[in-house]
Amino acid sequence: MVTLLLCLSVLLTLSAAVPTWYLEARQTFIDAEASMRIGAQLTLNPKEQLVNKYMMSLKNSSIQESIWTTKPFSPSISFFESKAWIDNSTLYDVIKMMPKGGILHLHDKAMTSLNWTVKTLTYLPGLYTKADQYSTRLYKFANSSPGVDWTLISDLRNASQDPDNFDEMLALNMSIWTPEPFKAYPSVNDVWGKFRSYFKTINGLINNITNVKAYVEEAIQEFYDDNVQYMELRGGTMIDNNGNDVTEQYLEIIQNAAYNFQSAHPDFYGVKVIIPGSREESEEGQAKMVNKTLSLMSKFPDLVKGFDLVDQEDINHLTLYYIDEFLKNDKSILPYFFHAGETVDGTQFVISAKLNYWTQGVDMNLVDSVLLNASRIGHGFAVYHHPKVLEAVIAKGIAVELNPISNQVLGLVSDLRNHPGAFLFANGAPVVVSSDDPAAWFASPLSHDFYMAFMGLGSINDDLRVLKQLAMNSFKYSTMTSDEKNEALRKWQIMWDTFINDVINKYHL
Amino acid sequence: MVTLLLCLSVLLTLSAAVPTWYLEARQTFIDAEASMRIGAQLTLNPKEQLVNKYMMSLKNSSIQESIWTTKPFSPSISFFESKAWIDNSTLYDVIKMMPKGGILHLHDKAMTSLNWTVKTLTYLPGLYTKADQYSTRLYKFANSSPGVDWTLISDLRNASQDPDNFDEMLALNMSIWTPEPFKAYPSVNDVWGKFRSYFKTINGLINNITNVKAYVEEAIQEFYDDNVQYMELRGGTMIDNNGNDVTEQYLEIIQNAAYNFQSAHPDFYGVKVIIPGSREESEEGQAKMVNKTLSLMSKFPDLVKGFDLVDQEDINHLTLYYIDEFLKNDKSILPYFFHAGETVDGTQFVISAKLNYWTQGVDMNLVDSVLLNASRIGHGFAVYHHPKVLEAVIAKGIAVELNPISNQVLGLVSDLRNHPGAFLFANGAPVVVSSDDPAAWFASPLSHDFYMAFMGLGSINDDLRVLKQLAMNSFKYSTMTSDEKNEALRKWQIMWDTFINDVINKYHL
Repeated sequence: MVTLLLCLSVLLTLSAAVPTWYLEARQTFIDAEASMRIGAQLTLNPKEQLVNKYMMSLKNSSIQESIWTTKPFSPSISFFESKAWIDNSTLYDVIKMMPKGGILHLHDKAMTSLNWTVKTLTYLPGLYTKADQYSTRLYKFANSSPGVDWTLISDLRNASQDPDNFDEMLALNMSIWTPEPFKAYPSVNDVWGKFRSYFKTINGLINNITNVKAYVEEAIQEFYDDNVQYMELRGGTMIDNNGNDVTEQYLEIIQNAAYNFQSAHPDFYGVKVIIPGSREESEEGQAKMVNKTLSLMSKFPDLVKGFDLVDQEDINHLTLYYIDEFLKNDKSILPYFFHAGETVDGTQFVISAKLNYWTQGVDMNLVDSVLLNASRIGHGFAVYHHPKVLEAVIAKGIAVELNPISNQVLGLVSDLRNHPGAFLFANGAPVVVSSDDPAAWFASPLSHDFYMAFMGLGSINDDLRVLKQLAMNSFKYSTMTSDEKNEALRKWQIMWDTFINDVINKYHL
Repeated sequence: MVTLLLCLSVLLTLSAAVPTWYLEARQTFIDAEASMRIGAQLTLNPKEQLVNKYMMSLKNSSIQESIWTTKPFSPSISFFESKAWIDNSTLYDVIKMMPKGGILHLHDKAMTSLNWTVKTLTYLPGLYTKADQYSTRLYKFANSSPGVDWTLISDLRNASQDPDNFDEMLALNMSIWTPEPFKAYPSVNDVWGKFRSYFKTINGLINNITNVKAYVEEAIQEFYDDNVQYMELRGGTMIDNNGNDVTEQYLEIIQNAAYNFQSAHPDFYGVKVIIPGSREESEEGQAKMVNKTLSLMSKFPDLVKGFDLVDQEDINHLTLYYIDEFLKNDKSILPYFFHAGETVDGTQFVISAKLNYWTQGVDMNLVDSVLLNASRIGHGFAVYHHPKVLEAVIAKGIAVELNPISNQVLGLVSDLRNHPGAFLFANGAPVVVSSDDPAAWFASPLSHDFYMAFMGLGSINDDLRVLKQLAMNSFKYSTMTSDEKNEALRKWQIMWDTFINDVINKYHL
């Protein structure tokens, strides 16, 4: 504080020498930009200001260290390298305590910690395993061995010298974690290969109704413990290990799990589901998925809230490919939440060998999301190259779901200060921050991504108002009804005030 | 060509099923964005279209390979890894042949290839060398040994087993080249440390009038050979090895070298100089530099054209620190070409321990450049965070000097498709592409950066028009008089037409 005042007084000395008209013109310019930024419309009360000052001093220390020493700034290096530092920081502790509102971009098969998954699901009886030709570990529950190359995981664990280490290796092997990401994954396709293998592995563990119930219940508990009050899942469909479509049973499980949790925890506001169609589908297949979604929406009106398109965008079908089907539906009946622009490829004309038609640029999915009046855009990483899309998302209030750590570990960007989220923050665009598939890379449910939003996407001047705005945006842009939104915001505001008091007390501010 | 038509016809089939109104609305949206992009106003003649088609097919092959295989896209990985691939590509050969116009951002102490520097300057008699405590090699020309730890380089070379290998090691040691950039330089400060040592080393070789004359002459030859027709240097000041200020002699050398070269090569349009002041200077020191610059401008009116501020921005004085001095001068008498926003730090309030005043955010240098009506902005990397600066550079026609490879190797960005130049291209902002300090990282004079502009900053749809526009911009935003600009453009247009014919002939298009 002494240093701060000292420095300010030196600035005043400097300013005295500078013509007032220039300083005024300069301040007007800077203010005009500052007023555009995310959170700029919020005003912090005196208690929030105390917490803000504390958080900003922690943030500034970290930035100063990176400027004056050779210690890298944590958002500038791979999460695989920065995680340990972050986990040991006071700032991360504060962000964990913060009620972060809802998470709006989360895949249902990568939401529960691998630690729990390994320690619980791989300890269930009758679990067989083998490694496929790509060293991906496959799992299968069975009454007897599914084949000669399958072994009981319990036998392998018993044969290992150190079961805890064995379990840790199982989790590491499932995840995309690597100490040397640039070596392990020279290209986006390398890391997507590994990422896809995660889903193969997890699938063998949760593709039955009993296990997925435990998985979902644990997910809700973990998100709640990370101070997330509401969840919207991309997912909800399921084929079980016998090849049966158990989607409706699965949705009931989610609905019941959420209901039970809410009953026990009135400060949790529920779970909703957005059904994903795969970009690998044929036109006919997608039309079926849309119809299935409409049917599920009528069967689970409070749970199922819309439709998405998923899978690696670069190598699969454009939104345009299914446009006939999408134009048929009324947005007020079937809201769209398409993944779009999750690519670093820029505006493209791509000859899609696999799909045998002339795709018109994978980032053109952004344009179709805008023209189809999507409710939100998943990722929107390529928005940077699309000034008219930026204009449209602001004008139409289409929220971009930012997933900073996901984009970094999946190879789209290295230094998160270059993440398009920073650009959207600067332009005050509608955004929320989510974690995408946190279990696949050992991220916390939402706190690590909120940390990156505060430190990396936000400029050094971006303060507590940004995080508060992100939490509030997570309700505003959710699929809740307006009554639900008002009620959630009212409850959340109480939690927020408690959080502010708790930080003041804990850190003696 | 057959594939292309086939694919288009498939698209038409697809389109037939899609409502026309949607395709029209979509195309209108896409066209509106496309019309904003750099080069969008140019129309290619039939011969240019032939060359364009060829270049675009080469570009597309490379992109397709990165989409469908795990071979990374060259602009997405470090130049230290991609250079060998690029040098072996046909596209790079075509770009080398292209008359690229002028280079507007180039430091005079890092412009001549290290190969020439080592093979010529380190073979001169009386050159002593030693390594300092940071393993930086220092050089000194002397009649007798400057001290016990100094050795004649010729003795070291004679003692080596392989003089060619010895020379290669000398060049590598000078450069910031490393096969593993993420390991060698975890932070921006690490690479800047190495970068500063380059200047210490080169200084010992060229800080006398005879050597610097050879260095400048060779630079002009190398740029000319790389099809660069005009050069603006940041530099022109010099303290020789006896501690004398030989700036005027040095400027005469540059002037004569340019004049002689122009006389022999009428398709070269000359060299101009922008005098750099250091951001490490005191206010008084900077005022002296400004006055010195004004005096040099009157002594060398056709050569010295303006003033810049240089050195690592993050840790040194803001433009605002010298604002008093800068406001005194009339832009029509002393044009400014400040380095500004060469940082990934975002909007900052930084306590500058070194300078003991409260600096107001290093990227605020962008704001001062705009308010001081700078003629151009060096780098402008942080413009991404400043929507009002973007507006202002477009409205005022302040060109941003992009140096993609420099920004990558100095740690600001990893994948060049995330470089702010891509964002400026999309917004049709006034830009030029330069190479900054190409000798320090074994880049070609300008072709490698033009390659990156075409492949990385440009979207896949950005074609020959972008490179043509960049060449034309290099005259438009230069310090030439309007007569000089017209004459240069006229001559350049002839060279451009020849280039187009040459490519058609060489590749049988």
